[in-house]
Amino acid sequence: MDLELIRTLVVPNTTRIVLLSADGLGGLPDPATGRSELETARLPHLDELAARSACGLIRHVGPGITPGSGPGHLGLFGYDPLRYQVGRGILEALGIDFPLQPGDVAARGNFCTVDGEGRITDRRAGRIGTELCATLARRLRAIRLPGVETFVEPVKEHRFVLVLRGSGLSGRLSETDPQLLGTPPRPAEPLVPEAERTAGLINRFVAEARVLLADAAPANMLLLRGFDQLPTLPAFPEAFGLRAAAIAAYPMYRGLARLVGMEVLKTGAAFAEEVQTLAAHREGYDFFFLHYKDTDTAGEDGDFAGKVRALEALDAQIPAILATRPDVLAVTGDHASPAILKGHSWHPVPLLIHGPYAAPDGVGAFTERGCAGGSLGVIPSHHLMPLLLANALRLTKFGA
Amino acid sequence: MDLELIRTLVVPNTTRIVLLSADGLGGLPDPATGRSELETARLPHLDELAARSACGLIRHVGPGITPGSGPGHLGLFGYDPLRYQVGRGILEALGIDFPLQPGDVAARGNFCTVDGEGRITDRRAGRIGTELCATLARRLRAIRLPGVETFVEPVKEHRFVLVLRGSGLSGRLSETDPQLLGTPPRPAEPLVPEAERTAGLINRFVAEARVLLADAAPANMLLLRGFDQLPTLPAFPEAFGLRAAAIAAYPMYRGLARLVGMEVLKTGAAFAEEVQTLAAHREGYDFFFLHYKDTDTAGEDGDFAGKVRALEALDAQIPAILATRPDVLAVTGDHASPAILKGHSWHPVPLLIHGPYAAPDGVGAFTERGCAGGSLGVIPSHHLMPLLLANALRLTKFGA
Repeated sequence: MDLELIRTLVVPNTTRIVLLSADGLGGLPDPATGRSELETARLPHLDELAARSACGLIRHVGPGITPGSGPGHLGLFGYDPLRYQVGRGILEALGIDFPLQPGDVAARGNFCTVDGEGRITDRRAGRIGTELCATLARRLRAIRLPGVETFVEPVKEHRFVLVLRGSGLSGRLSETDPQLLGTPPRPAEPLVPEAERTAGLINRFVAEARVLLADAAPANMLLLRGFDQLPTLPAFPEAFGLRAAAIAAYPMYRGLARLVGMEVLKTGAAFAEEVQTLAAHREGYDFFFLHYKDTDTAGEDGDFAGKVRALEALDAQIPAILATRPDVLAVTGDHASPAILKGHSWHPVPLLIHGPYAAPDGVGAFTERGCAGGSLGVIPSHHLMPLLLANALRLTKFGA
Repeated sequence: MDLELIRTLVVPNTTRIVLLSADGLGGLPDPATGRSELETARLPHLDELAARSACGLIRHVGPGITPGSGPGHLGLFGYDPLRYQVGRGILEALGIDFPLQPGDVAARGNFCTVDGEGRITDRRAGRIGTELCATLARRLRAIRLPGVETFVEPVKEHRFVLVLRGSGLSGRLSETDPQLLGTPPRPAEPLVPEAERTAGLINRFVAEARVLLADAAPANMLLLRGFDQLPTLPAFPEAFGLRAAAIAAYPMYRGLARLVGMEVLKTGAAFAEEVQTLAAHREGYDFFFLHYKDTDTAGEDGDFAGKVRALEALDAQIPAILATRPDVLAVTGDHASPAILKGHSWHPVPLLIHGPYAAPDGVGAFTERGCAGGSLGVIPSHHLMPLLLANALRLTKFGA
């Protein structure tokens, strides 16, 4: 099943699809109660919608594989995440509207804390404020590397983007972040011979940054990962025949949507504002990717009650989303983030597809266990888009 | 999804995984009662464990495909059995600790009974005793073939292993066993031109054996199948980052475990002794493959009541297995062996995964129909290992 086949089957229609991705949606039972976040939350609108929808579970990437946000969303957008791989540096750069050019090498940076021996004591520098991050990023712009332009752009809290621009660069580098405490950052190593010069430039950048940041504790060092160059992905609007818009408050998800060629709409930071943006633009597009972040944030923090509240806040917006009258509405997530795991996980994520041709299947609760009994079964994430197109009557018959 | 990807995601942990393979686990309803072997047996421990586990079904090899024990177990060990194929001769040789060398050609042999016209009347020679098998095997060692060494090793009852050692041999031969009564054994045919000489040697061996066995009825002839040479498989301990041990009383399964690089532990013939071996070695390994044979033996004999008893005997050992406190315990089988089919079958096999991150899904009975309603769905056998690694927190995130 690939994008080329789908493209040959796409037919025009006036139907509208909304794909709501609740980040980190799935969870696991609280051992004390035996109920997951979704099972604990009061979700009258989602439960009622599930009862009127076809339900199932989405498995991202592969069995047992915990997806990052990039592969998680690429799958939801119809791209097999094992076939289309995109580095974190690229995603972060796109997410801050950085005008990447073909050939640029981008890396995600973290300011971090190191001790007197240079060993990492906090990989996120105590999550310094975004303003301090911007100040330090400006300081790093003083670094000059031979033959390349260097860009250092703050993202949020301790995170920034480093971009090298010049000819003959390669993103095939190992990460400097050992993802461990008590050990120093690693040098970037070339993973292919062509990346040798780039590795040297990166290591020189890090060495100079160490000096410039020496007095900036807790942000007295940096870590780089996710080196990559812009990939060539089939464009979403052409692949699926959809004028597509993304509504996401958080940079990463805007970047990902832009990468596949969606138009990114200006929106506010609150989810209610995202829903208002959807309502305001409903006539202008065939497809909306609507992103909700708070479920993941709480899950990653291990905040079970916070995730329950985030789910309830999402639920409260469902009527406003339905009021925009999408022909097909899918609600799912890019991965699970169980609070008891304090991070992403490999578990399949609940899915509902609501539309005139998605028969209700008796699932009365939008939960992991409820959706496991749904008629859609457990499907790979990149099977969702063909299903949504079909439900929107936008795919013709295969074979005469 | 392949082993290379998994290998890149493996991270160290101290968690311990136990994979219990009940051979031929799945069955079919007795037409008289409408209940399968699993549904007929009293399985208080397995049912209770299923209620505290994530459940599903494992589909081996492919839809409608009945797996042999080799592909059945290779799948459970994480190897796509369509990609990694191993001949029965190799497995039998490994199972008797025969020191196979690269290039050796091994075949599984059966002593059989032929009538005066050389037509097969019993493919297993009335399952002669293992001692007689050894005597006859010694007799066959008198056969000398030009340019190769020949080994004839008894296995159990009517079964033996034939190994040819020399340069330029090939295992790409057709089998001499027609798997039919009333017809004579077939000559071995080369399946590729390079196998022509080996086929000639095998046919000469069979011709000389016919003479040597003429007076040995019911074991007055032999059948050879599963010709193969040692395959090159990625080693299980490296692929999955697990110190792995196999506990199996029956040679075939020890051989298979050894083939993928597991350490084979010395154990007794009874399953209770296997469980004791597990308990005794629990600190020494990260992964245990624990094999239970009796379910398959009864199923293959068409002994419905015997299979029910074998299941109940297995159930009685579950508390002792749980007492070894595995972090993740999977219970499944390498294929179904419904008593009404008197052999292996293509039906998906019940699976449960028990561990802190495998949420119970309301399946209250460890049966074919119970597990069909589980949250894991129907998964290919080689997806099990990634799931077990994930549940043991031994896989990191894919993508940022």
